[in-house]
Amino acid sequence: MQKFLAIDAGGTSTRAVLVDPAGYCHGYGTAGGGNPVSRGFGPALDALVQASTLALGGRPAAIEGVLVAMAGASLELPLHLFQAGFKPLGLAGNVMIETDLLAMFYSGSCHDEGLALIAGTGAVGARIAGSQLAAVADGTGWLLGDKGSGFWLGREIAQAVAAALDGRGKATALTELVLAELGIAWEPHARTQGRLRAQQQLISRVYEQSPIELSRFTPLVFTVQEDDVARDIIERAANALAKTLLAVSLGVESDGAARIAARPLVFGGSVLTKGSTVAQAVVDTLTANNSEPGSGINTAITPILVDDGVAGSAVLVLKRHGIDVDAGVFSRIQDSLAALRS
Amino acid sequence: MQKFLAIDAGGTSTRAVLVDPAGYCHGYGTAGGGNPVSRGFGPALDALVQASTLALGGRPAAIEGVLVAMAGASLELPLHLFQAGFKPLGLAGNVMIETDLLAMFYSGSCHDEGLALIAGTGAVGARIAGSQLAAVADGTGWLLGDKGSGFWLGREIAQAVAAALDGRGKATALTELVLAELGIAWEPHARTQGRLRAQQQLISRVYEQSPIELSRFTPLVFTVQEDDVARDIIERAANALAKTLLAVSLGVESDGAARIAARPLVFGGSVLTKGSTVAQAVVDTLTANNSEPGSGINTAITPILVDDGVAGSAVLVLKRHGIDVDAGVFSRIQDSLAALRS
Repeated sequence: MQKFLAIDAGGTSTRAVLVDPAGYCHGYGTAGGGNPVSRGFGPALDALVQASTLALGGRPAAIEGVLVAMAGASLELPLHLFQAGFKPLGLAGNVMIETDLLAMFYSGSCHDEGLALIAGTGAVGARIAGSQLAAVADGTGWLLGDKGSGFWLGREIAQAVAAALDGRGKATALTELVLAELGIAWEPHARTQGRLRAQQQLISRVYEQSPIELSRFTPLVFTVQEDDVARDIIERAANALAKTLLAVSLGVESDGAARIAARPLVFGGSVLTKGSTVAQAVVDTLTANNSEPGSGINTAITPILVDDGVAGSAVLVLKRHGIDVDAGVFSRIQDSLAALRS
Repeated sequence: MQKFLAIDAGGTSTRAVLVDPAGYCHGYGTAGGGNPVSRGFGPALDALVQASTLALGGRPAAIEGVLVAMAGASLELPLHLFQAGFKPLGLAGNVMIETDLLAMFYSGSCHDEGLALIAGTGAVGARIAGSQLAAVADGTGWLLGDKGSGFWLGREIAQAVAAALDGRGKATALTELVLAELGIAWEPHARTQGRLRAQQQLISRVYEQSPIELSRFTPLVFTVQEDDVARDIIERAANALAKTLLAVSLGVESDGAARIAARPLVFGGSVLTKGSTVAQAVVDTLTANNSEPGSGINTAITPILVDDGVAGSAVLVLKRHGIDVDAGVFSRIQDSLAALRS
């Protein structure tokens, strides 16, 4: 029987699955970061091969094709080196690269048209049409955007605490949590040169570490949702993510929420899938913004939540080899993969 | 006659002036960055000595004392090394370090109570009381705040353009300006993987350079002030700066704008002093926010603009040596320094 390798190569971890044309998954393996942009080409390829070897149970097998889903798939990658790396595993066919966004979408749907919104460390929205990316919004990184992402939330939290400490912003329950997270004693009256010592220490600690570390504060905001400042941050994240989704849904017939409700909508990334607060707030924002409230169009928006892009990579590797992935194949991929991962 | 050296040590340039107790400035010199935090101790001290040597006309003189104004003055600095560095110039007394904020304030006023708002690359507000920093707000750096600063403006501009390019934000005249600044061709229809090629290039260029480089876009916003997006960015900068000033003015009797109008207010930094747009918008915001419109208190807010902290360093070195800096001494410092610098 034909077999394919489908790989979801992330910045910190890589997942590989061996799948057949009927959708049955025969093996699953994981390894470290497999993205050449963040890891370098050699270590990234090693991770892909390592996860694949585990998925093969350590034995080479006749593999028709390999599909690797990764961010930055538009970069020109030396495909022949991928090819050479997979040869010892039994690869007879080709290696193809697809974007992680497409793989995330197909983890939630086997349709070739739809929308995806991902908010993990970064944040990005995509419209899929004809099994390709038709429109992408945000995903512009931590300096230019990624609004509503884990990094964005963490930075907003840190900024809100910095502002609360010198009176520019409202007092917030986040202050105590952030200071505790950094091991800073909270002395409300200790000042040096006109500045609260706690604020001076917050500044020192934040600039000692790399900017991306601000993401560590993100979980804190969900523990104090009754706090005004925390609620405001969550609402602004949801608004930004809703705007990202609306931006990619332009060009689809009908307006606003109706436009989104009409297609499969996949949500991925920890901000949208761990806990329902942000996902629900995005759906509420979209529903409230529906520009045709009296149109009679059913605008119930029900996102499909996905953990990662490995199931979608399996869907993609079959589709790209001309195999029809219908609802039956799709559910076999989901079920057999879940069994392997449990 | 007694002589003192007053030095304003910035991150990229250093200014030194030789001043006597009557306020007459006898020599002036400049050098490169003199901040030990950003330059390292050795190069910073070299810059201080170099600017001072120029101020002395190359000849050692009997110097009663040296005052160095710099950011990060609260850091524990090896004063004995400063002392040793200035000895060959003729220093008989001590070297003392003060914060650049205090020096900026005294460049605009000889009073010992007042407010300062600085918006250059960073942004910070301070209340001065009893010739010391009584309260400081913001100045928390590019990740935590510095709202309304040159960096903040540049980042907002870049983010607005990134959002305009994928439909999350309004179209703006800034797009063409930012793309031209980066040498990116503006092809409104060229897409790769669902993304406008111009946006992909914007992303690549921005992450190739260090974050602080985003400040280069700041001047662009003032060239298209009739643009909605540009106007919104300027207004948000002014609101943030007004909030910073209001935060430090708490604790002074009376409310809002009246509280600020009652004391000397010094504005410094390129964002507030090069062009009047932001400074005027801050004053307008403060005046509009006056919480006692019917109180009959005169709330006219008239900021004093200063270029740097060198005049203030001269004021400070005299004050710290027990010399009364009255209006006469203060205007002599201003006038004789201006003559030396022209």
